[in-house]
Order: sequence, then structure tokens, then C-alpha cells
Amino acid sequence: MFSHKKELQYHAKPERPDPLFAKHLQEILGGQFGEISVAMQYLFQGWNARGDEKYKDLIMDTGTEELGHIEMISTMIARLLDNAPLNEQEKAAEDPVIGAIMGGMNPHHAIVSGLGAMPENSAGVPWSGGYIIASGNLVADMRANLNAESQGRLQVARLYEMTDDRGIKEMLSFLLARDTMHQNQWYAALKELEEVHGTTVPGTVPREWEATDFSYDLINFSEGEESAEGSWASGATPDGAGEFAYVKEPKAHGGKQELKPAPSYVHGTPPTK
Amino acid sequence: MFSHKKELQYHAKPERPDPLFAKHLQEILGGQFGEISVAMQYLFQGWNARGDEKYKDLIMDTGTEELGHIEMISTMIARLLDNAPLNEQEKAAEDPVIGAIMGGMNPHHAIVSGLGAMPENSAGVPWSGGYIIASGNLVADMRANLNAESQGRLQVARLYEMTDDRGIKEMLSFLLARDTMHQNQWYAALKELEEVHGTTVPGTVPREWEATDFSYDLINFSEGEESAEGSWASGATPDGAGEFAYVKEPKAHGGKQELKPAPSYVHGTPPTK
Amino acid sequence: MFSHKKELQYHAKPERPDPLFAKHLQEILGGQFGEISVAMQYLFQGWNARGDEKYKDLIMDTGTEELGHIEMISTMIARLLDNAPLNEQEKAAEDPVIGAIMGGMNPHHAIVSGLGAMPENSAGVPWSGGYIIASGNLVADMRANLNAESQGRLQVARLYEMTDDRGIKEMLSFLLARDTMHQNQWYAALKELEEVHGTTVPGTVPREWEATDFSYDLINFSEGEESAEGSWASGATPDGAGEFAYVKEPKAHGGKQELKPAPSYVHGTPPTK
Amino acid sequence: MFSHKKELQYHAKPERPDPLFAKHLQEILGGQFGEISVAMQYLFQGWNARGDEKYKDLIMDTGTEELGHIEMISTMIARLLDNAPLNEQEKAAEDPVIGAIMGGMNPHHAIVSGLGAMPENSAGVPWSGGYIIASGNLVADMRANLNAESQGRLQVARLYEMTDDRGIKEMLSFLLARDTMHQNQWYAALKELEEVHGTTVPGTVPREWEATDFSYDLINFSEGEESAEGSWASGATPDGAGEFAYVKEPKAHGGKQELKPAPSYVHGTPPTK
Amino acid sequence: MFSHKKELQYHAKPERPDPLFAKHLQEILGGQFGEISVAMQYLFQGWNARGDEKYKDLIMDTGTEELGHIEMISTMIARLLDNAPLNEQEKAAEDPVIGAIMGGMNPHHAIVSGLGAMPENSAGVPWSGGYIIASGNLVADMRANLNAESQGRLQVARLYEMTDDRGIKEMLSFLLARDTMHQNQWYAALKELEEVHGTTVPGTVPREWEATDFSYDLINFSEGEESAEGSWASGATPDGAGEFAYVKEPKAHGGKQELKPAPSYVHGTPPTK
Amino acid sequence: MFSHKKELQYHAKPERPDPLFAKHLQEILGGQFGEISVAMQYLFQGWNARGDEKYKDLIMDTGTEELGHIEMISTMIARLLDNAPLNEQEKAAEDPVIGAIMGGMNPHHAIVSGLGAMPENSAGVPWSGGYIIASGNLVADMRANLNAESQGRLQVARLYEMTDDRGIKEMLSFLLARDTMHQNQWYAALKELEEVHGTTVPGTVPREWEATDFSYDLINFSEGEESAEGSWASGATPDGAGEFAYVKEPKAHGGKQELKPAPSYVHGTPPTK
Repeated sequence: MFSHKKELQYHAKPERPDPLFAKHLQEILGGQFGEISVAMQYLFQGWNARGDEKYKDLIMDTGTEELGHIEMISTMIARLLDNAPLNEQEKAAEDPVIGAIMGGMNPHHAIVSGLGAMPENSAGVPWSGGYIIASGNLVADMRANLNAESQGRLQVARLYEMTDDRGIKEMLSFLLARDTMHQNQWYAALKELEEVHGTTVPGTVPREWEATDFSYDLINFSEGEESAEGSWASGATPDGAGEFAYVKEPKAHGGKQELKPAPSYVHGTPPTK
Repeated sequence: MFSHKKELQYHAKPERPDPLFAKHLQEILGGQFGEISVAMQYLFQGWNARGDEKYKDLIMDTGTEELGHIEMISTMIARLLDNAPLNEQEKAAEDPVIGAIMGGMNPHHAIVSGLGAMPENSAGVPWSGGYIIASGNLVADMRANLNAESQGRLQVARLYEMTDDRGIKEMLSFLLARDTMHQNQWYAALKELEEVHGTTVPGTVPREWEATDFSYDLINFSEGEESAEGSWASGATPDGAGEFAYVKEPKAHGGKQELKPAPSYVHGTPPTK
Repeated sequence: MFSHKKELQYHAKPERPDPLFAKHLQEILGGQFGEISVAMQYLFQGWNARGDEKYKDLIMDTGTEELGHIEMISTMIARLLDNAPLNEQEKAAEDPVIGAIMGGMNPHHAIVSGLGAMPENSAGVPWSGGYIIASGNLVADMRANLNAESQGRLQVARLYEMTDDRGIKEMLSFLLARDTMHQNQWYAALKELEEVHGTTVPGTVPREWEATDFSYDLINFSEGEESAEGSWASGATPDGAGEFAYVKEPKAHGGKQELKPAPSYVHGTPPTK
Repeated sequence: MFSHKKELQYHAKPERPDPLFAKHLQEILGGQFGEISVAMQYLFQGWNARGDEKYKDLIMDTGTEELGHIEMISTMIARLLDNAPLNEQEKAAEDPVIGAIMGGMNPHHAIVSGLGAMPENSAGVPWSGGYIIASGNLVADMRANLNAESQGRLQVARLYEMTDDRGIKEMLSFLLARDTMHQNQWYAALKELEEVHGTTVPGTVPREWEATDFSYDLINFSEGEESAEGSWASGATPDGAGEFAYVKEPKAHGGKQELKPAPSYVHGTPPTK
Repeated sequence: MFSHKKELQYHAKPERPDPLFAKHLQEILGGQFGEISVAMQYLFQGWNARGDEKYKDLIMDTGTEELGHIEMISTMIARLLDNAPLNEQEKAAEDPVIGAIMGGMNPHHAIVSGLGAMPENSAGVPWSGGYIIASGNLVADMRANLNAESQGRLQVARLYEMTDDRGIKEMLSFLLARDTMHQNQWYAALKELEEVHGTTVPGTVPREWEATDFSYDLINFSEGEESAEGSWASGATPDGAGEFAYVKEPKAHGGKQELKPAPSYVHGTPPTK
Repeated sequence: MFSHKKELQYHAKPERPDPLFAKHLQEILGGQFGEISVAMQYLFQGWNARGDEKYKDLIMDTGTEELGHIEMISTMIARLLDNAPLNEQEKAAEDPVIGAIMGGMNPHHAIVSGLGAMPENSAGVPWSGGYIIASGNLVADMRANLNAESQGRLQVARLYEMTDDRGIKEMLSFLLARDTMHQNQWYAALKELEEVHGTTVPGTVPREWEATDFSYDLINFSEGEESAEGSWASGATPDGAGEFAYVKEPKAHGGKQELKPAPSYVHGTPPTK
């Protein structure tokens, strides 16, 4: 069960409106790695967790915080849209910079939400439940989380480069900090878990299920052998169970790809002849 | 530029048709972590790579291999659909197990593809370009890749549990092995890269951009303090730059969430009064 | 800013697992009118609200409650999946009812989430940001909310009919009650707002913008005149500004639909001549 | 069965081409509340209606009219694209306003449709069947319809503000008028239906299905008590069956959210220890 | 402008309800090549047509007819759902065939539409505007149309095989006939147009725009030379302008795929050194 | 199984960066008829092919080539983004043309991919598996392929008109040529197949399944009789089996569209009485 406080977790006041930047900020609100994604991802992971209370609590702490980040960025977007100019011909004739802004705005901000944030990314594509990950395996999901915070912080850093507005930068500086924390915490949790469950997910697959002849081979499917120089092409494997090998010539083991003729009731083209 | 060999990388012959399992296998073909996803993810990462030839080559080796896995699983699905029964009433009246199968089949396998594989997941949702990740930052993307192979291998293990068909299990044993390799290789590459670029992505953000007061705090947004017991709540942080702290009471720093009145031209409800 | 309590708002314990019903319950979790939709709809409306504190607070109260409903239904789904049978051939051969269940399960529950809830509807389609409504006009949005709670309660009532499990019915009885409240509260708020702003949205459009000759005509586009019998075909209009009229023969006022030839640079088929 | 007349229902001739406005108009053609949505929503409601001929006829009258609105707006969009400039460098170098226009155009209008309308919204996202509502319950669906026409007319009013072109304004004045009618007719139909079936949907749920202790409580999930001032917080409820109550402190009734351990065959992380 | 007649174009009465078949029929209603697709495709082509009245009229005749087919199939689906059994446990315990049916039904038919048709395909995925084609080039679009009717009739034939219900078969026999007509008419129109505009679309590309060295080469990218035996590997080309050639060894002409280093402001991983 | 060569199939070097054109090129990479679509379409057709080796090999040759086209266009897009300006205010103030460019860029190119290509179309909508066609019937699928190459070449021609950059034009000249070849080869294959299997798909439907009274009638659903002038309105039909007829007055054969009342358990509005 949740409760809500009307104060924002951090400042979200731009120096001045900027409808183009409002469009760009949508990426970290409703994009693949926006705040809706991390909030939903962590909450579903928490609700689906079956055991291990300390991980579950950590996940719920973080998922709940991210709800507050959705709020912060939504607020910033609405403020960036304050009194956005909507009538093109008139204003654009006077000032081409305004023309460029109006040409570049997300039209949903004007027509659909009436100068408010939308649950969509910077191109205007609605957020999708298909973005999130909650597999029931904590090692796998900590990797998903570490990735999410890495992609997210990278996007925040790019947005930081794209503006000179000190108010926007202030909010982004907070997001950079929280993403630093979240990367560190998932990293720490992942190390804990890998020590117990091993580095290969899932750690519960019996050796005999696996075609172990192929478990540590780097196969050279792309001509050129630069990849043979990496730490993944020779030496002990990170899981401690094998030795990397480099296979110069890919081999096919599966025979020719061919299928039986279709039964007549599917109305394929009958075999010629 | 690519070229194609007609032999499959590995065996993809079931002992007998099984249209329900064909539906389930679609998950690792066209689902969020299916073979289309990893093929496209690695290829886009490779094409977008700007420098560091040995990583790029590794990525292209693996992306190209995954194209062959799409082929293998597509072939298996088509074979599982060989002569699938389509006419319900008649057959189901005789044999309720057949009725259950027909009720549970992916109808696209019958109506749309004529007993062939589809680029969609196990619920019949089409594959989406929104699944993949290619950010131009190698540390971030190696985490995405490590996650993808973890989620993928987990799904293969679950499918392995769901069938007794030795032919299907044989193909899955190969996928388990290759996913072991791919997890190990991305793990090794990630370690190499983290040593150079640090563990917090992106490593190029100057310290002064960040609201460092908040960079290492675990904030207790979900009541209960189980999360305080983890390695992420005290002690040195994995990035080597700070100390974790546990914040029992979340604080709001951003003031009340409120917006200016809307201009009349957006036709919101005017303020009452 | 949000905080989280580990207790559920209401009971969510089924008498026994039922993986088919778990699939069906996904509709009110991740469907068009599921709990993710109402939570996000209300929260975005609240964050985008520009003035009128008492409506905003009501909206935030309700949006925050709905977050707890996502949690409740997710929990119920996970419990309905406890120890769900996954291996088809074996079990289905013994018991066709189990075969039917396995044929009918959402495969994501087995393969993707490992017996947990998913952010998707009962057909397995991911939740979409395109479902929600937050227009910045409170009269319009109260109608959206009243509709959402009407569709939602209708779906809950149908699910109530579909099961005999007393634990599920108990949770649904709570949702029926809360949806009763939410319909009543949006209804009351709508009446308040209509009294101030009128019944036609937006109430701020000057009369002279409108082609008033067409503002109160019911035009008979579908043959048969049954619709002429309703309260919408004659008498005073609800907005108090006109009289309904019934137009038996639709008239076209816009001239023939035709376009200028395409310029050569779009490479349409050039006009035949 | 339908038939088609080549004349448009109303004028759709702009004074001059305006490719940016063509992009914006796509919202009311292929957006969530565009003409495709209302046409399809009403037609599916009509086709699925089981009884009550006068409502069904009204719905079919209106759905059929909306098909003609799709046509009108498509025509307007095509005309706004007449001879749109496509070659950027050349033209933009001469005139930055043209540059802004070309930067802001929907690229599909140039590349995909060859200066014609697209079944997509103003951001270029394809229309989705997931937008429409046809539940089989007339009270619920009349609320959906009233909302659709409210959102739609609001968007038309915003577009009206965004242009000075008298031809576009003329078409929008007609849409404003028809949306006035459609709001009034659904409003009237809704009142008729609520009188018979009550205001809480569905009206057929027996009292004993509902956890009536919670049917009229406003629960204060968002701190601050402004919402206690509304007509929804005390006094008789609109359904005439209860009294609103204001609950200052939310209570949890459902016990701790926790799940049984996962069975080993789902390959979650096994419980530590 | 459209008008509607309440009679169906053809019979749509099944002998008996069949909720599983109702799910399957959704494919030709709301699938990629369902009736919504062809109706919308033809109508958008008609509205976007710039010249050539006789093609435009043919397209509008056909698009308008398809609206009536949506109606026919929606009606059939609703009738197949008459009194569909929804309560699983009870009924399935008595009769496993009923269990199979309920496991296999589209849950939307029960929960969302209340025994009515949905604008979605047989897997429950909503219809998408991304399916349709209206390019402004008639030769291209006639090919799209010929394809649509070919895929559509193929799906109808498969559905015909899947049922013994004479009422359903009667409706399908009508659809088979109309699809025969539509294939023949688009075929005839295409021949007319190809005679005028040539067989290569668009026919307006000047020869000198094209790298003509590559215009008629079949390149052997997939090992094995079976493709060399077809009429596409030697002899005159259908466009009458060249000779097919078979290229045994694919050649790369574009140099190595490599990119410049990223500027620092995108925060990629800096080049290792 | 596939292998990869690092050289590009053809040149993909622009004269200079152009981030707006990068956005436009996304259409032929990740749009409905972009290279991802044709690659996936042909590969799935090839893998699902059941017999007729020479067609299958042709399809696999072409599908494999298209993988190389994805690579070429991705490379071009990345090069067009080299050092794209991202910081709006600063640059736009100096130069409105730059302002227009930044307003018009795909924000994903800056924020998400870090100056690399994305698997999405020119509006930023992710590629969807719902675009492709692989039906198992070769005549149908050759029509799909002929259409795909026609739409694709048309889009390339439009893009060719939209730029003056000789490097881009060079790459497009190659794509024009390959699309010429692909149109010719699918055309030739289609002719071969139609000679054997007839022109109506599927050719395997027995005459008696079809309501032949309606197989060759053009029905005048859109007023005006221009369509009566075409080769599709009289004379022998292309399939050689009938005579076209023109039906001036559409007739309804199916009786009134009406449904039985809903059972009470769906909670529709009960019939008024």
C-alpha cells in the first residue's frame, strides 16, 4: 500500500520555459529506460519476489523512490511548457527560432495534454509494458537493474549536455546522483548473489542438461580475428568452470534446413510437378 | 555483408509434433529476450560502435551467430507444427487432449503462417524494435548483453523443464551451452571495460555535475528495514569513491508540486472562483 | 513523493491455485481499464493539474490508492500460479482438465516471469501508455474517470461470475466496493464542475467559433428511424442552449472529394492521358 | 452494409498549404480520440448491441457519420500537403521558416504516403484498436462516448487556436458543432439510461457481492486534506444508496505481501541459506 | 460521406455457438489482412488519390464494401459467443471439452466486450494502423491490394477447413467469392497500369539515378545454386530493359564498415589507449 | 547459418553530416518497408518454405542480401550524425537553420543511441514483427514481395529527391538498382508460379466452396459509375474462369443485423421494458 506526500523529492524548476527540451525530457520519463520503466520494473520484481526479504525490501525501497522521480520529471516538463507558443504562422513569421521550436515540439504537449507531461518517450511513442523485466531470478534481475540504471544515467548525462538552463541541470544533477547510488547498490547486490549462486544464470541447471562441448567456444562468425585478442578468447572463464577457446572456422552441426511438405489443408502452394 | 549456409548450426528435430510447445518456443524466438532481440541488439551495437575494434568484432561474431539461432528455432517450430490438427469439433469430440491442444495453439500458426514460425512471442505479440539496446557506451551495453543472455538462458531452462521430447531437449541443450558462453564472454568483456572506465556508467561525467550528497544513500521508501542488512547499506561502495549510508526517513527537498495556471488558449477548466 | 507499507490494502488469498484464472485477472491489472491504467491516469492528471487544489488532492488520493490495487492483484496472480503444472505431455495424458489448463495458461507466467504477474492484459498484450487520459480539462477528465471506473467495475463483475473460489471473490468484492466509491466520487465531482463550466467541453469556446447550424441536429445516417424516439431527437438540449432536431436525410455540404495532381517529385503514378 | 457519396459532409479547403498543420491535424484523425477512434468505437458498439433498438440506431447513425469525418480530415490533410517542399538544404538555406517547416513535418507525409493522410496520430504513432471501447453495457459505453466527444472537442478547440487559416477554421467550426451535438446526445442518452439502471455500473451486481464497508469511503492516500472539502466527502452519494465518509488515515487490511517459495522448476534464485 | 443500411450484405448465422472459432475468426476481422485492414487501406488510397477517377472510384467501391464485411464478421463472432460458458471450474469438471474451450477462448470476449467482437486479431493483439498501405502510387498500391486479397483469401480457406458448421461455411463461401473478385479486379487494374507506367515502380525514376550495373544481377548470398535455375537468373527481364545475370560470388564494394570516434558529449566509452 | 564480412556491400559515405536526413533515412531502415522488414520477411519465408528448392534458395539469397542493406543504411545514418549539434539554445540563437535542424532531429539519435541508427521508422516508432508476411503460399508471398520492393523503391526515389548530397545519392542509386532487380525477380517468379497454380490464391480451393454468384461482380458501393469503365467491369476475368459484371445497385442478402439478448452473467444493460 502506498501513500503520497505533496512535496517533490528534489527541485524541478527550470529557469525558463523550453518546449523543445520538454520533448527531450520525455525520454527519461516514458522511454525504454525512463522512470516509468524503472518504477514498474522494480515494483513488479518486488511483488513477484518469492523469499529473501532483504533483497525484496531493497527493491521496494527503490521502486517506490522511482515513483517520486516520475513525479519530478512530469513537473519539470509541465513547467517547461508554461505558456508555450502554439500558433505557428503568426509567431514563426516574426521569429524563426520560435518557428523552429514550434516545428520541433511534441504536438501532444499542445493538443492532447494541454501543456502537461505524457506517458511516452521523446519521439511520442507510448510507454510499453514490454520494456520491463521481472523474471523471478534475482541474479538475472539484478543484471537487468544494473543495466537499466547504466542506460538511464547515460541518457541523463546526454540531456545535461543539451541544455544551459541551470534549473534543469540542477534536477539532472540529482538524477545523476541517484543513478550513481542505484548502480552501486545493484552492483553490490549482484556480487553478493553471484557469490552464492554462481555467475551463470540460472545456477540451477544441471551440467548434464548442457551440450558442454559448446559452452566456452568463441566462434568467429564475423571475418577478421580482432576478437581473439580479448580476455574472452582464451584463459579461464569467469564462472571458474572452463577454458575459453577460439574457433576460427564456424561449423554447422545441424544438417540441411528443410521441412516436410505442407498438408493440403493449409493451402500452401502444392509442390510443383 | 552477410552470407548464408543451408546447414543449421545445430540439430532442430523434435521426436514428434507438438503444436502447444511450438507456441511456447515462440518466446525465445520473438519475445523480449528471444533470438531476434539478441541478433538485432548485437548487430546494431556493432554497426554503431565508434572505435575499439576487438569489442566490435566480438559483438559482430555473436550477432551473426544469433541469426543462425533464429533459423534453428524457426525450423524447430515448423517441425513441431507438422500436420497439426486444425479442425476442432471433430477431433476434440474424440479426444479431449487434442481438444486442449487445439484450444491452446497459437492461432497464427494455423491461419497466418500455414504451420510456420512467426516473428512474435509466446502470447502472439509481434516482436518490437523497442526491445533492443545499443547506446554507444560499451560498459552500459555489455551490461545489457549480460542481462539479455541471463534472461534468455533462464527461459531456455524453463522450457527444458516443460517437455519430455528428446529432440527438443537436444536443441535446448545447445542453446544452454551457447548462453553459458555468451554470459561468460560478456562478463569478461565487462570486467576489462570496468577496469578502464570505472563501474559507474558513464565514467565521463565530471564529479561537479552530480549532487553528490545523494550519491551513496539508500533511502528507506518502503517501511521495514530489512534492506539495511545488505552490503549496499554500509561500507565502501563498489565504485571505490564513497561510503554507503542508510537513510531511515526519506526527506522531500523539492517543495510542493504545483504549476502555474494554464493559459486560456489550452482550454483547460478555468480556475473556479 | 511516495512511501510504501508492506501490508496489502485488502485480502488477496485464493483458496487454491488456478493458472487459468491468473491469466484472466491480468485484464484488470494490465488491460485498457486495469489498475495500471487508472493509477497512471489519475497520477498524470494530478501532476498536470494547474489550479483547483481540492480536485487535485482528490485525484492524487485516488491515484495513490490504485498503486496499492496493482499490488493486490499482482499478489493474487502470483498466488494463483503457485506450483502451476508446466510439463504438458505427462500431466495432460493423465488428466485432460489439467491439459486444458496448461493449453490455456498465459505462457509468460511460466516462461518469462517464473510464476509472477506481468504488466499486460489477459491476452498477453503489454500495457500501453496510449490507454490513459490527462487532458488538462477537469470536466473532460472527470468523464474519462467515470468511464474508467464503470468499465473497470463491469470487468470485475464478470470475473466474479467466472469463479467459485471464495478467496478470489473476497478480493473482487473489495474492488467492487472501491469502484462503487470511485464512480460516486467522480460523479459528484463532475456535477460540481458542470455547474460551473457547463456540460459541453470545453466550456470556453466562444459561440462564434462554432457552425451553430449543426450543433443540435441528429442526422439519420443509418436507415431506420428508431433513434428519432429518444430524448436526444427533440426537446431542449442538456446544455440548455438549443433544441434537438431530427434530420431525416443527411446532406453533403462540402463538394466533391478531389485533390490536385501530385507534384512529380513524389513519384505517384502520373495522370493517364 | 454501407454506401458512399463522393461529396464531403462539409468544407475541407485550407486557404494555403501548411505541412506542419497537416501533422498536427493527424491527432484528430488517427489519435486516441481521433475520428478513426470514434467511428470504430460507435460501430463496434452498434454491432455488439444486444437489444434496445433506439440506442443501437442512434449509435449507428453517429458511427456512420464519423466515417465521413475521417474522410473530411484526410482530405484537409492532403490539401495542406499540396506541393510541400521536401528538399531541405536548398530551400532551408534560403528561408529559415521553410527550414523549420521541413524539420517539423511528419516525414511519413513525404516518404510514405506521398502527400496524403496517414492512419496515425500527430506524433506518427499508428492508430491502435486498443483505443476503443465497446463493452456491451450501455451505461458504461455512453460514458465512454461522452468522454470521447469531450476529449475530441477539446482537441479541436486547441487546433482552432493554433491556426489563422480561415479554411481550416471553417472545417473546425463544423467539428466543434458536431461534437456539441454528440456530447448533448450521449448526455441525454446517459440520463435516460441512468434513470432505469442506476448510476453505478453495472447496476446488476447484487448488494451482497460487495464489501459494502468500503463502498462510500474517500481515503486520504495523499497527504493534505483539501479533498475533504468536496461534495464527494460527505453527504448523500449520487447513487442514493449511502453517505460519503472521509477516512483520514488509510488502513491496510490485507496482511503482509508475501509469496510462497518458487518450485525448483522455475529456476528462480533458490532461497539463501 | 457514408450511409448505412441495417441489412447485412450476406448471411452470418452459425449453426451453433463456438467460442473457440469466434477467437479464430478475429484474424480476418482485426488481423494484418482482416477486413479492418482492407477497408482502411482502400479508403485511405481513395482519399489520397490525386487524379484518375476510374481507379479512385473502383477503390472507393471496394473500400466501402469492406466496411460491410467488418459488420458481417463482427455479427458472426457475436453469434458464435451466444451464451458462451464462462465459469471454468464448474463446467470443466463435468466436461473436459468445455474445459478446453474455456481454456482456449479469447478472454476479451468474456471480460472486455461482453460476448462481442473486438478490433483485434486471433491472438488478441489490437489492430494497428501500421498494417495499411496507401502510397500515392497506383501501381505500387495495386500490388499491395492484390497481395492483401491473396493473403486474405488464403486465411479464409484455412478457416473453412477448420470448421464443420454449415452456417460459418456459408459466410466463408461468400468471402471466398468476393476475394476472388477482388483479386481479379486488382489484377486487371494492375495490368492496365503496368502497360502505361511500366513494371518497375516507380516508373518515373530517370535511368541515370540508378547504379545500373546492379539492376539485373541475382547474387548468390545463400550457398547452393538452385536459384540459378529460375526464370529470374537468365534471359530477358520482365521490364524489357535488361538481361538477368547470375553472380556466383557476392562482392563487397563499400569498404570496411567503420565510424569516426564519438564526440565526448555523447558519453560513449572513450577509445581505449 | 550465417557469416559476416566487414566490408559493406556498397558505398555509404555522405559528403557531410545531416541529422535531419538521418531521421528520414530511418524510414527505409526500420519502417514498414524498410530493410529490416524485407530481410525478416524473406528469411521467415525461406525458413517456413515446405518444398520447391529453387524458390527457397532465391528467397534466402535475397533475404541474406537485405541483412547487408540494414548494415549499409545503419552506417550511413551514423555518419550523417557525426558530431551532430545537440545543445539547442546556444547554437539556435546563432543560426536558425541549426535551430530548425535540432528541432527536427529524431531525439533518439541524440539521447538513446548516441549518434547511431535505431531499429525504428522516420517518426521514431519501433519496428514491428507485425509488418512481415510469410504465409506458406508462394504465389501469395511473391505478391507480398513484389509489393514490398515496389513500396521500398518508391520511398528510395522520394528520399533521392530530398537531398543534394552526392554521397547519399550514390548509396540510394545502388538501392534503386537492387530494388529494380528484386522487383524483376519476384515478378518473374510470380509469373512462373501463376502459370502452374493459377492467378487466384489459393489455387487449391474447390469451386464448390465458393458462392460463385458473387465471384466476378463489381458492386457500385460508391456513387458515380466511373469504375464501370475499367477492364475489371466487363469482359473475361484474368483467371480465365468468368466474366466481369457491373452491379449498379448493391443488394443486401443477409437480413437485419441483430443479436440475441445477452445472458445476465455478462452484466450488459438489461433490455428496457
